[in-house]
Amino acid sequence: MRRTLTSALPATRPGEQVRLQGWVHRRRELAKVTFLVLRDRTGPAQVVLPAGTDLPPEETPIEVVGTATRNEQAPGGVEVTEATVTALSEPADTPAVELWRPTLDTGLPTLLDHAATTWRHPVQRAKWELAAASLRGFRETLDAQDFTEVHSPKLVEQATESGANVFTVDYFGRPAYLAQSPQFYKQQLVGVFERVYEVGPVFRAEPHDTVRHLAEYVSLDVELGFVEDHHEVMACLRDVIAGMVEGIERYAGPAVERLGLTLPHVPDRIPTIHFRRALEIAAAPVDEPDLNPGHERALGEWARSEHGSDFLLVEGYPTAHRAFYSHPDPDDPHWSRAFDLIFRGIELVSGAQRLHRYDDYVRTLEERGYPYAPYATYVEAFRRGIPPHGGFAIGLERWVGRLVEAPNIREVTLFPRDLHRLAP
Amino acid sequence: MRRTLTSALPATRPGEQVRLQGWVHRRRELAKVTFLVLRDRTGPAQVVLPAGTDLPPEETPIEVVGTATRNEQAPGGVEVTEATVTALSEPADTPAVELWRPTLDTGLPTLLDHAATTWRHPVQRAKWELAAASLRGFRETLDAQDFTEVHSPKLVEQATESGANVFTVDYFGRPAYLAQSPQFYKQQLVGVFERVYEVGPVFRAEPHDTVRHLAEYVSLDVELGFVEDHHEVMACLRDVIAGMVEGIERYAGPAVERLGLTLPHVPDRIPTIHFRRALEIAAAPVDEPDLNPGHERALGEWARSEHGSDFLLVEGYPTAHRAFYSHPDPDDPHWSRAFDLIFRGIELVSGAQRLHRYDDYVRTLEERGYPYAPYATYVEAFRRGIPPHGGFAIGLERWVGRLVEAPNIREVTLFPRDLHRLAP
Repeated sequence: MRRTLTSALPATRPGEQVRLQGWVHRRRELAKVTFLVLRDRTGPAQVVLPAGTDLPPEETPIEVVGTATRNEQAPGGVEVTEATVTALSEPADTPAVELWRPTLDTGLPTLLDHAATTWRHPVQRAKWELAAASLRGFRETLDAQDFTEVHSPKLVEQATESGANVFTVDYFGRPAYLAQSPQFYKQQLVGVFERVYEVGPVFRAEPHDTVRHLAEYVSLDVELGFVEDHHEVMACLRDVIAGMVEGIERYAGPAVERLGLTLPHVPDRIPTIHFRRALEIAAAPVDEPDLNPGHERALGEWARSEHGSDFLLVEGYPTAHRAFYSHPDPDDPHWSRAFDLIFRGIELVSGAQRLHRYDDYVRTLEERGYPYAPYATYVEAFRRGIPPHGGFAIGLERWVGRLVEAPNIREVTLFPRDLHRLAP
Repeated sequence: MRRTLTSALPATRPGEQVRLQGWVHRRRELAKVTFLVLRDRTGPAQVVLPAGTDLPPEETPIEVVGTATRNEQAPGGVEVTEATVTALSEPADTPAVELWRPTLDTGLPTLLDHAATTWRHPVQRAKWELAAASLRGFRETLDAQDFTEVHSPKLVEQATESGANVFTVDYFGRPAYLAQSPQFYKQQLVGVFERVYEVGPVFRAEPHDTVRHLAEYVSLDVELGFVEDHHEVMACLRDVIAGMVEGIERYAGPAVERLGLTLPHVPDRIPTIHFRRALEIAAAPVDEPDLNPGHERALGEWARSEHGSDFLLVEGYPTAHRAFYSHPDPDDPHWSRAFDLIFRGIELVSGAQRLHRYDDYVRTLEERGYPYAPYATYVEAFRRGIPPHGGFAIGLERWVGRLVEAPNIREVTLFPRDLHRLAP
């Protein structure tokens, strides 16, 4: 007999024999009857058994064979009666948290220490379902626009992107580093494929314990060539974000419902302001070189009240304070063609048009007092003909964290890594 | 004026004004005319210019605006005339290889040292296009079967999967390791999502220089719960491989053509033999514990001549010589429920039904003389109710390497990492 998923029970014929597989979600012993709730990947099903039936403990994997029976009181209107229950593994130990409760009320340490168990809670699991659906939407959007998926090495020879915050690896007796981003590779690959994306881990030896940083996270990187300027890059970002929301709608509807979420609306054109204006709105000094979390919160509120938008693009950050490969505004090189996307008051995405001329790289490295040698492989690539290009990077966990308004990014990370945590 | 891709030129109206963007692929100066071949991500286009036109060197990014004109001699039957050519960046330096030649005849060191350039060659680029299309096919197959994409950490606390061949990381002053596979995580996540897959980097400090090993490669990992035995896992693997071939057919047709490839046929049921039979066929001693590359070649030839198949599944490897989490054959625990997929004479995939009972893990660790402590987090997860499950891992580069019959796996890796190579 083929397995029936619990989500398919409502479509069975009354009296049909069914075979369910899943976990003991809950046992309830009443005077005249025993209720068993079986949970599979699609949800719960109610199984009715005689009073006093001996059942394996919660979280034990089981198989139930029985009769699909209409009952308006049961979830989905169908329950399983005249059932036999078979354990598919040993009886499970009592979980660290009661997974059958509607909400998962536990402190962060328990949530993370027992991640393999706590992710089983339907509401907790829903958060990762948003992540997985977002990834599908991300790729579908870019595949449809003729992008090529790439995979660049995570072991690199130079700690160049930013001297600090880099992990050192013993690489056959010499030092190597964990890539802080696929930045240098995706730019070089624009020379090959014109348009590339990569989904993969990036590593930051972040020495501070904050609610929004991780030592390892999933970065969604995009880079595209033959652009006029950064506005084309921002238009691409807009499509990608819209695609991620559509991915959630299409593939994670039940998760959205379980979480009681309202998904953000992505406007056809995301409200866009210059960095100077952003400082004004955030009531920051005019010579402030960057936006801090407080400024971002203020800008998030402004975007909501002025534009009814969860999203705000800030362009034109001061060139000197962005990565050296950011393209300056040709009309006033004090400002750059770099941008951030603020989502509900937090920086979600950084992007820019990049430099594409070798001479500009050489001059910028000089101006910043960076040595040439460590950048040589990367910078030399620009002597081989790289068109005007730009791109951006989205942090997956930060995206999901803001969607569900998690107070700590670790809550939406399967197995987070930080200053103190390297397991599970 | 919107950009026209070279692949769209045949669909233009005669006399239509077009704007192309791409690279100078080749310049040819004849007595009465200058030919320019522009290359974009979809292919080449011929541009006809007056004799003596000054053109930027090969590989310079350019824009061409001109008139689409029928010419049976031109590629695609349409060329661009009355054109103006504008450079979009500095003139490119002479590339390390002549990219306009139909084949890329260069030694491996040049190919790899100048990867960002050599990948531009249409035939070389086609190899990665197979990889990208395979990834799409992989995900589409599993998404349709209700799998959830996951991302597990690459920084791990214990070097447990195999004591040797592991890279050590300085993790905020204490040692951490780079994950050799997502094995432990994907098994634990079966307890959450039932069916999971991950595409990501894995790291092996492989101290030998071989043509089929890399220090970092892309692993396509799959794990599924509620299986009867490993045959269900092998059936899933068959669907995945078929999906990868379909992905190539659907999304990389031009690459297949450029490479002159014949794609493998994936039979509805891949021929499957027991390990004992495999030893016989390979004329190996009956007490041989594993198959070596010579055996695999012999088996590949046998599968082709006996079954007309590029694929062969070998099941039942000796339990003692497989990973400790492999499930023994209950009828004769000397043999396991582990399998390999041999593709054209090379092991492409390893998989198995895994142990799912805590007690079996404890006993197996004891029998092998492994200490419990380093495995504790992983093994404890099996006290929380993990159903019978199994899975497999496909090496992306090895897959593409066999598809194009590359003599060295480095030829199909964007930026390979090995004992000696950490750049570019």
